[in-house]
Amino acid sequence: MSIITLTTDYGLKDHFVGALKGKILSQDSEAKIVDISHDVDPFNVSEASYIIGAAYNSFPKGTVHIVGIDIELRENNQHIAIEWNGHFFIAADNGILSMLIEKIKPQKMVVINIHDRLLPEATDMDVLLMVAIHISKGGSLSVIGKEIKSLKEVTELQPVISDDTNSIKGYIVYLDRFGNAVTNITRKMFLDVSKGRPYEVNFKSKKIKSIFAKYSDLEAIDKRPLSSISGNAVAIFNEAGFLEIGLYKSNPKVATAASLLGITYRDAITINFN
Amino acid sequence: MSIITLTTDYGLKDHFVGALKGKILSQDSEAKIVDISHDVDPFNVSEASYIIGAAYNSFPKGTVHIVGIDIELRENNQHIAIEWNGHFFIAADNGILSMLIEKIKPQKMVVINIHDRLLPEATDMDVLLMVAIHISKGGSLSVIGKEIKSLKEVTELQPVISDDTNSIKGYIVYLDRFGNAVTNITRKMFLDVSKGRPYEVNFKSKKIKSIFAKYSDLEAIDKRPLSSISGNAVAIFNEAGFLEIGLYKSNPKVATAASLLGITYRDAITINFN
Amino acid sequence: MSIITLTTDYGLKDHFVGALKGKILSQDSEAKIVDISHDVDPFNVSEASYIIGAAYNSFPKGTVHIVGIDIELRENNQHIAIEWNGHFFIAADNGILSMLIEKIKPQKMVVINIHDRLLPEATDMDVLLMVAIHISKGGSLSVIGKEIKSLKEVTELQPVISDDTNSIKGYIVYLDRFGNAVTNITRKMFLDVSKGRPYEVNFKSKKIKSIFAKYSDLEAIDKRPLSSISGNAVAIFNEAGFLEIGLYKSNPKVATAASLLGITYRDAITINFN
Repeated sequence: MSIITLTTDYGLKDHFVGALKGKILSQDSEAKIVDISHDVDPFNVSEASYIIGAAYNSFPKGTVHIVGIDIELRENNQHIAIEWNGHFFIAADNGILSMLIEKIKPQKMVVINIHDRLLPEATDMDVLLMVAIHISKGGSLSVIGKEIKSLKEVTELQPVISDDTNSIKGYIVYLDRFGNAVTNITRKMFLDVSKGRPYEVNFKSKKIKSIFAKYSDLEAIDKRPLSSISGNAVAIFNEAGFLEIGLYKSNPKVATAASLLGITYRDAITINFN
Repeated sequence: MSIITLTTDYGLKDHFVGALKGKILSQDSEAKIVDISHDVDPFNVSEASYIIGAAYNSFPKGTVHIVGIDIELRENNQHIAIEWNGHFFIAADNGILSMLIEKIKPQKMVVINIHDRLLPEATDMDVLLMVAIHISKGGSLSVIGKEIKSLKEVTELQPVISDDTNSIKGYIVYLDRFGNAVTNITRKMFLDVSKGRPYEVNFKSKKIKSIFAKYSDLEAIDKRPLSSISGNAVAIFNEAGFLEIGLYKSNPKVATAASLLGITYRDAITINFN
Repeated sequence: MSIITLTTDYGLKDHFVGALKGKILSQDSEAKIVDISHDVDPFNVSEASYIIGAAYNSFPKGTVHIVGIDIELRENNQHIAIEWNGHFFIAADNGILSMLIEKIKPQKMVVINIHDRLLPEATDMDVLLMVAIHISKGGSLSVIGKEIKSLKEVTELQPVISDDTNSIKGYIVYLDRFGNAVTNITRKMFLDVSKGRPYEVNFKSKKIKSIFAKYSDLEAIDKRPLSSISGNAVAIFNEAGFLEIGLYKSNPKVATAASLLGITYRDAITINFN
């Protein structure tokens, strides 16, 4: 039996998450449930897409990921299940998964069609978790849905490589707990385009000359006293592979990339190659 | 062995919840522990009662629920364990369980009397969790307590049906993460009284003509553009079966039923039938 | 296989904690993971030290505790693993464990030296969790590190007993969810020094004449109506064995020891014996 992960905007105070786990365990007492996040900003599909995209690959192949944000069944918000990169994702067709799968082709996608097999009082989440348990036990997608070839398109800002390949323009898609501003530019995209050329990261009216692999690299390279570096803007590829702008060892209560540099959600950021 | 759930006001930052789980696992390495909530407002028995009442029924029969709010043993705050509706609840006799069991008669209720079997430095929670482990292994309530016939009465506001059955008056008992104001009027109470009659939900100086089963029903019925509905007050029965007042798809950071409609905890709400 | 506990400053919103659990389960599908806290103030080693110190002893002997605060590998921030008081701790040598082990001698301490066995893109946390899984399966510390005899010294304020043993001076090291101000003076230290003498607890310009074992003791001793006690400063030894100053049954939203008494982190507190 494979792991079931949960990503929702339910919060941790209300009864929702506990009740959800109780329902899964009622149907399968041996289920292995792991929380990814329940603090997604309500109805924020971009945030949910970033979080599940950054987390899923740390789980074993075959893991089933429930993404419970904006899942109310409507004509233009169907419930879907997809197999992608060796993992299974169950969500509504609201953009969360279309953002996620952009770079790799899914193995299979279905619109879930088991709603009439549940009791009338079943909630939308009841549908998703019944599908999740089915798949975690090795069940097939064909049994619970009808194959589809595409997902709803999203109008969210996507990173763009210029025609002359001299720049990549991306956007801030997430502000994390440490106050780092995460972009949708990946290390892979950077390596594909850079081909070893020198570059400059530009955002607002600021420039950064180097992207680090981790914060401690900055310490190794920069021989100034740490106190003079502390609080400076740095660019790194985070462990999920995305370019992020942060302040070196800053306490988010004091200053963050957002508060000190004025960076906000959806701001543009450009890497220019020479 | 049955599941043990935890509902406390301990919060998630301090060491309390981790230590509690460590103690359970020290006594029973195979224990299955599920968090319901640790963010109950400190000492708030009404909130705890709503949360455990909304969550417990999603768990399998036989689950043991520890409700660790205001559990310090005092003459008028005895530790109790009850079997009710196929589940077990362990708490202090402070009103949390008397609110919960109002509608269904408990199978058995005991005052816990094992305190002298524990070490002098044992905490009140140590007592509750020893009882929980005992029950989760199939142990009987009689072994750990003395049967009682009633719980301490609570003076909390309860819903009332008028003598002529032309109205139900209830109260706001919980404000959830999405800014919805949850009442203590249940769907069952509404169906028993309404007998198909038209009705009107009144609170503050506002009126709502329909109660929906879920938010998406509003979308199906109301053909105006969503943007004109978004932010309007709606009444629904939530998945736990309680009437709640919400704003359609509102982001709680922007507006909530509480902030926009001026509804607060303990406000009255009336359903009038014609 | 033993339990693995997690104490980090990752927060619960971002993908970090979910990804961490996914990585552990990818390497060992039977791992038992328990969260202690993920809400440690970023980079706050004192707070992390208090939390893990207060929680670890509730777990069974042999438990492996990962303390993931400020773990970036630097020349003066080596990764370490220690066996202490029957438990295993894995962290960076940044003061968290040196504060913890002050009173009891560790059985074994090593500097982790397996970094070249991991892939170049491995994060610092990847190193710690590989070590944790190794130890949880019964592996030896010698296999993953080189023995050391001491940890980095910390300059954090430590409690001091006066030469004439007539006083103990300690400091506020933690403010908990209930607004209690926790000191680094332990019950053991108090009992060793007091030898039954009368005493007075002094902080700011306030005096407290009795230290209670729990809050309800106050109720038993003090016969005034509760309403007149509620909100008064009391001193107790908390369940983790540390002296703390609290307000009786106060709601932290209304008043805390910190807000009402003006106590803050690192304030001095003295017990004077007569």
